[in-house]
Amino acid sequence: MERATPVLNDPFSPSERVRAAVYHNIFTRRDVRSQFLADQVSDLVLSRVLMAAHHAPSVGFMQPWNFLVIRSNAVRLQVHSAFLLARAEEAKKFESGKEQQYRRLKLEGILDAPVNICVTCDHERAGPAVLGRTHNSATDVYSTVCAVQNLWLAARAEGLGLGWVSIFKPTALQEILGIPTTVSPIAYLCVGYVSHFLDKPELELAGWRSRTPLEELVFFDHWGQNHCEWSDGVVQRIQHIQELESQGVMAE
Amino acid sequence: MERATPVLNDPFSPSERVRAAVYHNIFTRRDVRSQFLADQVSDLVLSRVLMAAHHAPSVGFMQPWNFLVIRSNAVRLQVHSAFLLARAEEAKKFESGKEQQYRRLKLEGILDAPVNICVTCDHERAGPAVLGRTHNSATDVYSTVCAVQNLWLAARAEGLGLGWVSIFKPTALQEILGIPTTVSPIAYLCVGYVSHFLDKPELELAGWRSRTPLEELVFFDHWGQNHCEWSDGVVQRIQHIQELESQGVMAE
Repeated sequence: MERATPVLNDPFSPSERVRAAVYHNIFTRRDVRSQFLADQVSDLVLSRVLMAAHHAPSVGFMQPWNFLVIRSNAVRLQVHSAFLLARAEEAKKFESGKEQQYRRLKLEGILDAPVNICVTCDHERAGPAVLGRTHNSATDVYSTVCAVQNLWLAARAEGLGLGWVSIFKPTALQEILGIPTTVSPIAYLCVGYVSHFLDKPELELAGWRSRTPLEELVFFDHWGQNHCEWSDGVVQRIQHIQELESQGVMAE
Repeated sequence: MERATPVLNDPFSPSERVRAAVYHNIFTRRDVRSQFLADQVSDLVLSRVLMAAHHAPSVGFMQPWNFLVIRSNAVRLQVHSAFLLARAEEAKKFESGKEQQYRRLKLEGILDAPVNICVTCDHERAGPAVLGRTHNSATDVYSTVCAVQNLWLAARAEGLGLGWVSIFKPTALQEILGIPTTVSPIAYLCVGYVSHFLDKPELELAGWRSRTPLEELVFFDHWGQNHCEWSDGVVQRIQHIQELESQGVMAE
């Protein structure tokens, strides 16, 4: 990331090194499906990534999450069957050319990755009144997703691949894992060491969709306003960073 | 984080340094409300944190987010009024002692922070059929929250404080910012440099709620199962890391 910065006061200062490391980790994180190795994840490494997840922000500090760590083959086989069923349903949603492409994609590593983690959200964790949740009851789910993203980034820093599988019928995970109805399974994660991390997202490499230029997604002061008196500098900087990224500089 | 690890092959290797930096960043991230400075955030730094957000994972690579960057005083004043209204409503939800504590808490930095960012989710971004969204239409929202958490962690690495304000009536932001009905405002973020970062979450320091011991939130192979043949090592490691954290080692 340093090269995206025209001026660095001291590129070897601790704060600059932390910054470069955090960006590097964010830009090289991948949703892994195909590159898992069978190598076991140690208890220590597992504990560290769970601890990172537990340090996510949560509305009203409610910490609504649980982490269901699955190593059992029998359980993973059941989850995999549920995935296959849902995938067959989803494939039919696409038109013929896209459907064939869909069927060729590898979309999960449930049995390949030695550890699976189901991250859940307990909607009753902190009682009926939760600070910051009065006007939007989904804020507990938002908090849980923040925990997932922390876990994902910590995993990347450990050299662990992680893939989020979302192709399940709504109640399938609940039934297989015995999750109560007041608790929602939010993310089903496959975690393990990998042969390598891909340079770009797998769906981008497969030609499924491409990355949207960021400047098309940024508005200023009001929805739909892509220009105002102070916006030119921001847009130019975004385009500059994007240009560096297309040359592969940012992910180095 | 190094001291939580009994054995490091080479603590000065690039991968160990990245790992330590990522954990440090995760553990010292705060939801900031009270420590904002008026110092402007440069276009370059703003562009970098937006770029980090744009590199979040998204289901079917749909990238459902937009970033509405707000520097206008007039707009922030309107948003602040909407917050005050919702806060008065929420205060009544708590019993008398807790209500008084609630009213004393500072819950946002809308006018203190020089930049506000509203992160939205466009539910129609990638058409009706989205890979991975067939069985759970909320996966687009999950992706957007991942973008928020990326932005938050990038901000922390830049030395920027960030506070997520969720105390608004559901349609307030939509009306003030002109957001269409097919798009949901997911997060309203206050961003700016800070005098300092607190050692612990503000709600924990204020005695609102305390952090739950992580081992109480982890199950093995099945919901509610907090013990199995391979779980002892994980629980011991978690307790060890937690012990280090209570001594302030992890956040160093």
